[in-house]
Amino acid sequence: MEQETKGVSEQDETSGCKMKQPIETLPESDFNSISRVIAVMSGKGGVGKSSVAALIGVRLAKEGYRVGVLDADITGPSIPKMFGIKSSAEAMEFGILPVKSSLGIEVMSLNLLLKNEDDPVIWRGPLIAGAVKQFWTDVLWGKLDYLIVDLPPGTGDVPITVMRSIPLDGVIIVSSPQDVAAMIVKKAIRMASMMNTEILGLIENMSYAICPKCGETLHLFGPSRGEELAKSSGIRYLGALPIDPKLARLCDLGLVEEYDSEQIWSGIKWAELMNREVPK
Amino acid sequence: MEQETKGVSEQDETSGCKMKQPIETLPESDFNSISRVIAVMSGKGGVGKSSVAALIGVRLAKEGYRVGVLDADITGPSIPKMFGIKSSAEAMEFGILPVKSSLGIEVMSLNLLLKNEDDPVIWRGPLIAGAVKQFWTDVLWGKLDYLIVDLPPGTGDVPITVMRSIPLDGVIIVSSPQDVAAMIVKKAIRMASMMNTEILGLIENMSYAICPKCGETLHLFGPSRGEELAKSSGIRYLGALPIDPKLARLCDLGLVEEYDSEQIWSGIKWAELMNREVPK
Repeated sequence: MEQETKGVSEQDETSGCKMKQPIETLPESDFNSISRVIAVMSGKGGVGKSSVAALIGVRLAKEGYRVGVLDADITGPSIPKMFGIKSSAEAMEFGILPVKSSLGIEVMSLNLLLKNEDDPVIWRGPLIAGAVKQFWTDVLWGKLDYLIVDLPPGTGDVPITVMRSIPLDGVIIVSSPQDVAAMIVKKAIRMASMMNTEILGLIENMSYAICPKCGETLHLFGPSRGEELAKSSGIRYLGALPIDPKLARLCDLGLVEEYDSEQIWSGIKWAELMNREVPK
Repeated sequence: MEQETKGVSEQDETSGCKMKQPIETLPESDFNSISRVIAVMSGKGGVGKSSVAALIGVRLAKEGYRVGVLDADITGPSIPKMFGIKSSAEAMEFGILPVKSSLGIEVMSLNLLLKNEDDPVIWRGPLIAGAVKQFWTDVLWGKLDYLIVDLPPGTGDVPITVMRSIPLDGVIIVSSPQDVAAMIVKKAIRMASMMNTEILGLIENMSYAICPKCGETLHLFGPSRGEELAKSSGIRYLGALPIDPKLARLCDLGLVEEYDSEQIWSGIKWAELMNREVPK
């Protein structure tokens, strides 16, 4: 178990303290000016990171901000489909042009570079990490108030690369009520803290569902534990989002921007999240 | 976009045809004799791969087979928690001993090598792939009828390594009803086919939920489309599983083995899946 031992010792080095390696922040392109970069992370797959990332982008765009969404989930990108984007990203002399959503949100995703949206990207880590770096350095984002980065599950290449190479203002953690999920979300929280990335708060997604027939509140994945998870991790709890078949349908139709944002955000401390001064 | 171009061209090479690279199957350890190796894959995170993998293992063990579960989700491992395994895997002179569940299922997971279950594994791809290889070559599985491999989301390092280096008899695809998920599941199906890995069939998970108060069937993630997805991909449809709060609770308690398997498997063509002769 030579390699394993090496692995575990590398892990041990990082587990109690901050990462010792310096952050090698990549320069912003001369064509870009981005005020805030916020990553959405979970560690666990399928808790709704992408829909939360999309909804945050939509909310900010509706408030009048210039918004971009960088889909860093290279092998499982769902952002373009949620926004109904079917055209490809075009390469220009100075970089790649993101594609604009109906609301004017600038979107970049590996799926915008593929011939068919269901073509698999059978790449190993270094290539995947390279693509994410280029989404930062070589995409012509222009002038943005907010760039939302949708991270893939896990604590591997992409989260490492994003936290090391992109000047993040902070990360929003998405959890779900299952304890099995919480355990993996804690890994993500600890990773962010080890890598000196500020955690802006935690949103519990898929917290409950409402029976459309009798109005009963169903805790399908167990009782909510987002608040407790946030408290025990020393981070701010931002609130809970339900499983809403309407959101699922709109995401499938590419109409995430039509989702009623007042309704969705009523459970979330939006002002507390966004009014907080994040030093750059 | 030098690296990107390189990436896309590597992808293009593989997209229409079978992978040209030869499979470098790793040898089985002298201490092991494993009759069937079946991977559970999805591409998409959070559709319940791990619970499906666990339930397949439990069902086989209850039928009297000797079963192992290899948790290949290195950065998001949920298998040990579902089986209630808290002890660590021990390293012996000739390899690592997996940990036995209550039912006698042999389990190996990166979490069995960590001090705390929520320690993050902040590793890049090559190290992650190395750990998975060692779970095949250096773990003392002994004599097994079935080894179930629980794959992480995506089509990156781990699925590549498992399909290239472990002699799989086939892969079971897990989907969920959302169209956004189906698009990513299709990537996994196409990857398996490009890598000449046999697909044993598709199970749709989280297909529906039942309201405990009024008995209404809720299609929270949209109408079921597993059968249509399987048909259009030319693979066998094995059936649908519901979102069941009881399963979520038992997984959280580490009691997945107590889940009533008759009930869960009533919707799945189990005999068709398992009686199929898979050539070794």
